[in-house]
Amino acid sequence: MSKKSIRVGLLGFGVVGQGAWKHLLADGDGLERLLGVRVELVKASIRSLDKEREVTIPPEKLTTDSWEIVNDPEIDLVCELMGGIEPARELTMTAIANGKHVVTANKALICEHGAEIFAAAEQAGTHYGFEASVAGGIPIIKTIRESLVANEFRLIYGILNGTSNYILTRMEQEGASFDEVLDAARELGYVEADEALDLDGYDAAHKTVILAYLAHGLWAREGSFPIEGIRRISTEDLRAAGKLNCKVKLIAVIRRDFDTQGVALGVYPALVPMREVIARTDGVYNGISVTGSVLGTTVLTGRGAGQDPTASSVISDVVDAIKVILGEKPPPKLRHTSEGACRLAVPSEVEGAFYLRLTVEDKPGQLARVADTLADQEVSIATVLQTGIPERSAASIILTTHETNEHSIAMAIKALGGLQGMLDKPVLLRMFDSNNNNTK
Amino acid sequence: MSKKSIRVGLLGFGVVGQGAWKHLLADGDGLERLLGVRVELVKASIRSLDKEREVTIPPEKLTTDSWEIVNDPEIDLVCELMGGIEPARELTMTAIANGKHVVTANKALICEHGAEIFAAAEQAGTHYGFEASVAGGIPIIKTIRESLVANEFRLIYGILNGTSNYILTRMEQEGASFDEVLDAARELGYVEADEALDLDGYDAAHKTVILAYLAHGLWAREGSFPIEGIRRISTEDLRAAGKLNCKVKLIAVIRRDFDTQGVALGVYPALVPMREVIARTDGVYNGISVTGSVLGTTVLTGRGAGQDPTASSVISDVVDAIKVILGEKPPPKLRHTSEGACRLAVPSEVEGAFYLRLTVEDKPGQLARVADTLADQEVSIATVLQTGIPERSAASIILTTHETNEHSIAMAIKALGGLQGMLDKPVLLRMFDSNNNNTK
Repeated sequence: MSKKSIRVGLLGFGVVGQGAWKHLLADGDGLERLLGVRVELVKASIRSLDKEREVTIPPEKLTTDSWEIVNDPEIDLVCELMGGIEPARELTMTAIANGKHVVTANKALICEHGAEIFAAAEQAGTHYGFEASVAGGIPIIKTIRESLVANEFRLIYGILNGTSNYILTRMEQEGASFDEVLDAARELGYVEADEALDLDGYDAAHKTVILAYLAHGLWAREGSFPIEGIRRISTEDLRAAGKLNCKVKLIAVIRRDFDTQGVALGVYPALVPMREVIARTDGVYNGISVTGSVLGTTVLTGRGAGQDPTASSVISDVVDAIKVILGEKPPPKLRHTSEGACRLAVPSEVEGAFYLRLTVEDKPGQLARVADTLADQEVSIATVLQTGIPERSAASIILTTHETNEHSIAMAIKALGGLQGMLDKPVLLRMFDSNNNNTK
Repeated sequence: MSKKSIRVGLLGFGVVGQGAWKHLLADGDGLERLLGVRVELVKASIRSLDKEREVTIPPEKLTTDSWEIVNDPEIDLVCELMGGIEPARELTMTAIANGKHVVTANKALICEHGAEIFAAAEQAGTHYGFEASVAGGIPIIKTIRESLVANEFRLIYGILNGTSNYILTRMEQEGASFDEVLDAARELGYVEADEALDLDGYDAAHKTVILAYLAHGLWAREGSFPIEGIRRISTEDLRAAGKLNCKVKLIAVIRRDFDTQGVALGVYPALVPMREVIARTDGVYNGISVTGSVLGTTVLTGRGAGQDPTASSVISDVVDAIKVILGEKPPPKLRHTSEGACRLAVPSEVEGAFYLRLTVEDKPGQLARVADTLADQEVSIATVLQTGIPERSAASIILTTHETNEHSIAMAIKALGGLQGMLDKPVLLRMFDSNNNNTK
């Protein structure tokens, strides 16, 4: 096809939208040299015309009507950078139905409606690019989808939320409390308006679902795997982790057992051994470790969010979409060597060791009762450290377990909750082990 | 095009060739599911029919005549895994002229004849894939070429040779000498037959040339930039680096100054600050840190060599080539936003600080003479440590310099070499600083 220009519309003109616009504009000559066509930025939709923006564009290029963009027959390519489920879903489906190619950073949307959207794009023969949806500047989607195409993935794990990593890093480096550092992170604008996304693991969980689909052809529903956040982590936990030569990181884990074809997913704070690159990935950085059947382990680290890194991924997808517009076939179906073959592992199959911190009344026999409760669930204690908390007339019991499984530990936690003299809800951290198969 | 199978021939059936054959065979069903065609392994060329091989294939599929493969009209795709310049170059050019797609792991060939081969492939409309030529299992070629397409690269640096990294890591961890660890590495089969490739930096230099071309459209000739190896590194250097909170790593550096458009290339042992992921990339692992104008910094680590990781990259290229065979356009020209604009920086432009270890006669006035000699070249000393080497009646002077440039330090080294009482050739290490622009 001999097109002279590719006309692009943006849905949403927030931080990411403005970044994409800015860099697509600045990079116009380079992209033309690369692709032989001009990328023309036609229109961006916004909620309100009044708001001040960092990136200014001619007023006639702004619209408050997103439908104008997805229904404009002149527009070839739509970047959906508005986020949220609706109207993003309906706009995306309409754009695809209208034969437009779509690039997105919307993890929540893919997580919930990816199956529907992927199928629609495949049927329409359009490109649906979502590199920017997982780990901003890290090219993990293309890496799994194309570079590591020869591999089946035993283990994919890492840090997928920069905000929680920033908070844990500052807590660890400064000995500061969660609340103190959270306030600082809020002031820096690092925390999403919906704080649960960052602090309770939901943002990382959305990305986990996308990666699990890419790697194993498995759509996992939220609620079907553990999602835990960092709100209850204390500096005491970070110090205890340090003594075990580990760091506490909020990690996403996708582990496949090739014998049972069970895939264990989880997002939770864990003790990660310092020998792992992921343990040493600090601050706002993300890191993803991918263990492939042919490749071995490769780790990618970089900025996981922010205007510019995300724009970099958006533009990479824009270029791939333009190649399709210019006559390439869309990329082949996402590879589901295991579609239908894989299944979500059940908790009793997901093995591992755990770290528990209990706050109990400082009375004789408490430790014995805790130990008995754990033994009842066949959870066996590996190490234990009890220290006093004089100001509360309480004691802190930090213990690590031998290998057990998610079902048993959940039962144990429940039983501990009902124990007399238990002052707070137990704090549970997984002990990550990359060598452990972890599903049986 | 409705092909039922893609016929593949291998030039060379050594470690990498056998790995590619093994995994392409094992992965046949998966590839068919992905691509809709069968990958058929037709033939592999070998030097001698008698040799025993780890991967056995039907004897009729082996040939000692590589020309048979590149001239076979039935073969669609050739994997050139024989290495070396000739006959690999001529076979590759013939395969391309015959309309075949080529996948290679041959860094030396691309380094010397890349311009010719790329042009031929582009003209013939065939795919020439070389992911496996740089850093085995790390998908750095695709990342720079596709994922980071929106970026210009201020700095690309890292560890591109696993053998030298293995040796430095063991020296550091065990306090063992270079010669001891080299013997162990030889026994493990880690060292190439031509040891200079691993130990004197030439293997890393080949990869550096390829990355500099990809990132800046600049073909650098060997001899036009510093290439230094690790043979003269001592445990004393590693200890001194530790005191400076650094590790000694053999790194490749490609640094561009956007003001002057000078690109500084180098392969040399350097003191890398521990805060860098690259400093903590140990053993046989490779690591590449890429700083893009849009993206910020992303670091990729993984196995840089070996049968399986290299096969993983070969298969990724095979898949991309098959997509072209099935009707996709070949990937766009390598992006040279700066072709013609960039130039190789001259030594006087390449700034940085240096570490020097001198072994001198233990006589009065030596340090003064050294300091004078450096001052003559306007190299200013930052720190100095002199210790005795009683068994040689000698002294070791370890010094670090303030910021200077490659020209001045080269002149200083030359002058030091002529100094009375200098017992060994000075050992020079660069002090790597990612924040330093380093070219002016």
